[in-house]
Amino acid sequence: MIRMNEHFNKLQSSYLFSTIGKKVGEFQAANPSVSIIKLGIGDVTHALSAEIVQAFHAGVDELGDDATFRGYGPEQGYEFLRNAIAEIDFQARNCDIQADEIFVSDGAKCDTGNFQELFAQDITIAVPDPVYPVYVDTNVMAGRTGTFSKGRYEGLVYLESTKENSFVPSPPEKTVDLIYLCFPNNPTGATATKEQLTQWVEYARANQALILFDAAYVEFIRDPRLPRSIYEIPGAREMAVEFRSFSKTAGFTGTRAAYTVIPKDCLVYDHSGSGHSLHALWNRRQTTKFNGLSYPVQRAAAAVYTPQGQAQIHAQSDYYLENARLIREAMTGLGYPVTGGENSPYIWVEAGGDSWDFFDMLLQKAGVVTTPGSGFGRCGEGYIRISAFNHREKVLQALDRIAQALKS
Amino acid sequence: MIRMNEHFNKLQSSYLFSTIGKKVGEFQAANPSVSIIKLGIGDVTHALSAEIVQAFHAGVDELGDDATFRGYGPEQGYEFLRNAIAEIDFQARNCDIQADEIFVSDGAKCDTGNFQELFAQDITIAVPDPVYPVYVDTNVMAGRTGTFSKGRYEGLVYLESTKENSFVPSPPEKTVDLIYLCFPNNPTGATATKEQLTQWVEYARANQALILFDAAYVEFIRDPRLPRSIYEIPGAREMAVEFRSFSKTAGFTGTRAAYTVIPKDCLVYDHSGSGHSLHALWNRRQTTKFNGLSYPVQRAAAAVYTPQGQAQIHAQSDYYLENARLIREAMTGLGYPVTGGENSPYIWVEAGGDSWDFFDMLLQKAGVVTTPGSGFGRCGEGYIRISAFNHREKVLQALDRIAQALKS
Repeated sequence: MIRMNEHFNKLQSSYLFSTIGKKVGEFQAANPSVSIIKLGIGDVTHALSAEIVQAFHAGVDELGDDATFRGYGPEQGYEFLRNAIAEIDFQARNCDIQADEIFVSDGAKCDTGNFQELFAQDITIAVPDPVYPVYVDTNVMAGRTGTFSKGRYEGLVYLESTKENSFVPSPPEKTVDLIYLCFPNNPTGATATKEQLTQWVEYARANQALILFDAAYVEFIRDPRLPRSIYEIPGAREMAVEFRSFSKTAGFTGTRAAYTVIPKDCLVYDHSGSGHSLHALWNRRQTTKFNGLSYPVQRAAAAVYTPQGQAQIHAQSDYYLENARLIREAMTGLGYPVTGGENSPYIWVEAGGDSWDFFDMLLQKAGVVTTPGSGFGRCGEGYIRISAFNHREKVLQALDRIAQALKS
Repeated sequence: MIRMNEHFNKLQSSYLFSTIGKKVGEFQAANPSVSIIKLGIGDVTHALSAEIVQAFHAGVDELGDDATFRGYGPEQGYEFLRNAIAEIDFQARNCDIQADEIFVSDGAKCDTGNFQELFAQDITIAVPDPVYPVYVDTNVMAGRTGTFSKGRYEGLVYLESTKENSFVPSPPEKTVDLIYLCFPNNPTGATATKEQLTQWVEYARANQALILFDAAYVEFIRDPRLPRSIYEIPGAREMAVEFRSFSKTAGFTGTRAAYTVIPKDCLVYDHSGSGHSLHALWNRRQTTKFNGLSYPVQRAAAAVYTPQGQAQIHAQSDYYLENARLIREAMTGLGYPVTGGENSPYIWVEAGGDSWDFFDMLLQKAGVVTTPGSGFGRCGEGYIRISAFNHREKVLQALDRIAQALKS
């Protein structure tokens, strides 16, 4: 009899954004005349920039001509893209990362989701709370947790990110083996200083732990004192993997491109305590289960690293950051404490009550979609996340409607 | 201490095609003047057809304009593509498959590799021998096998595909829970009749087993009596999942697109024997770990289903099949028994000796790259696979060189 992976039964009913989608659909059906404004899911709204579009087309044309056609590419990504990433995103910032330590993929969701496959079944895992649900759910599916109880999975160590610690948790008392961190944070928008990340790298070294550092939102950092990569921290080459995405950086949510950095100094241990190369392990995983990113998409991604491409994506993130500033100021002005939105496209708003109630109220009274903080974990209760990804006029209109709703 | 998934240590040193790549690289370095002809890895060589290129460009243009920009799409694929697939690939052939039973992805390698995540750890798995290595290696990584010994992993049931059964194995005596089948077969090029597939569907029903049917090469079937989908077999909706790919069908090895069909009638059971929807399980897996296929690629894939697109891809597969005919006849003429190559782009050649010796001889004496059959399993020993994916003049030149080498 074909039996199922019963760990799937531990998963909570529905992925957060599916529930939101359902609520929005019901509201729209009941109120067909309302033009809903979406500041919920963190999806970009601006077209790919001209430089990227041009390179994308050129890549398609190459595949349309026998003389330049390319079939299977390297599973790890083409050298032209890995070189550009290593130079611009790391070496130019004095991070010692080489091109062959970059693994190009079709999404940071895939990479952060699949990465747990490399580890033993019984490691101890620390996840932030609130958290991007993928880190947790993929470990639940793999059987690394107990059941769900009182908003948490048994067996995980939750790193509470609260007002008290300015949403940046310190390393736990307890020893853990694998640590998921995300800065600028999804969902809180909080950022970590070099000193804070240094604490984590030192904790990892002291415990032979590994940090999985999700830097999907790094393009929104404007404060020059903030680290833009975990590899700005001394010793991180041995203790951390970094995930990056073109989704928010360059508007690739529909185009799909991302990469993962695995320094060759990272080790993972067998039962006898012998070290093995984490890079080699992921390489084996990827060559067995992945066939490389679409070639024209790799050409498009490489265009991000041209001087024009860099200027264009920077202008886009400036635009979204101005939206974020407007949202911050409006919510603050309405008396709601906020964090994030300065070096991040997310604004984390203290709702003064239940997350879903506040979400429902904004949907019903203002026709504005946000994301209830409790969907990201127990510490997200009482908050909502507002995303700055939208057109300016929509953001302004949403803020007007929210002001009306909250004053009424 | 961060500990590894030690099942990875059971994997044999290197993926087959990496070893071949290394040997070819060494030969080329030692013989820089030889123009090597690759009939090894099954990679297409012809440009995307005009209809596909045009749709691909149109998709890119949509992403380059704020008015038509699309961000995250449905993880399962856009309706326009799922509808086209369901209509043309299934309903037009009297297979009862609906659009919402189609899951679009970036590769059949990913899907066949990831699908095992849905099952319990201790199911019994049958795999063909010779076999596409991904079916086996992904289950090894997941810990569903013992160690490797004498060319096989302990715990797997091997379905021997030999000259005696014309390379189409019958269901085993032993009860198994999960069965990987691939027709037209990679690597042997053998095809299965409706009667043979019916035997498998009946076996699955009798044992509450599930068939994972890899139909990546279905576009090469010309014999109208041969089934082009497992769903042509009565009752298969309850017993089988089907994997399809645009790679060989439409020249998408560098573009990346595929899909998996999971009929809503397929069940998978928990420890108490209760049935659960396999479709719901894969949907949960995909929405958690995958973000959908690149939008312009989905537009390109949909163009495959226009009348012009169908005519163009059919002309391409005709071309490769003519190559296959030439290879078949040449090898037969040289006294080597062959199978495949009639409804398949692969020709399986009995080498009359050790696979790697024959591979090395063809590389050294003819500068032609093939694939040693033993790389696909114990029953592949004594065979090589020749791929028909190349330009006609290269194929003719390779056959001339092989004739010279074998006669000398």
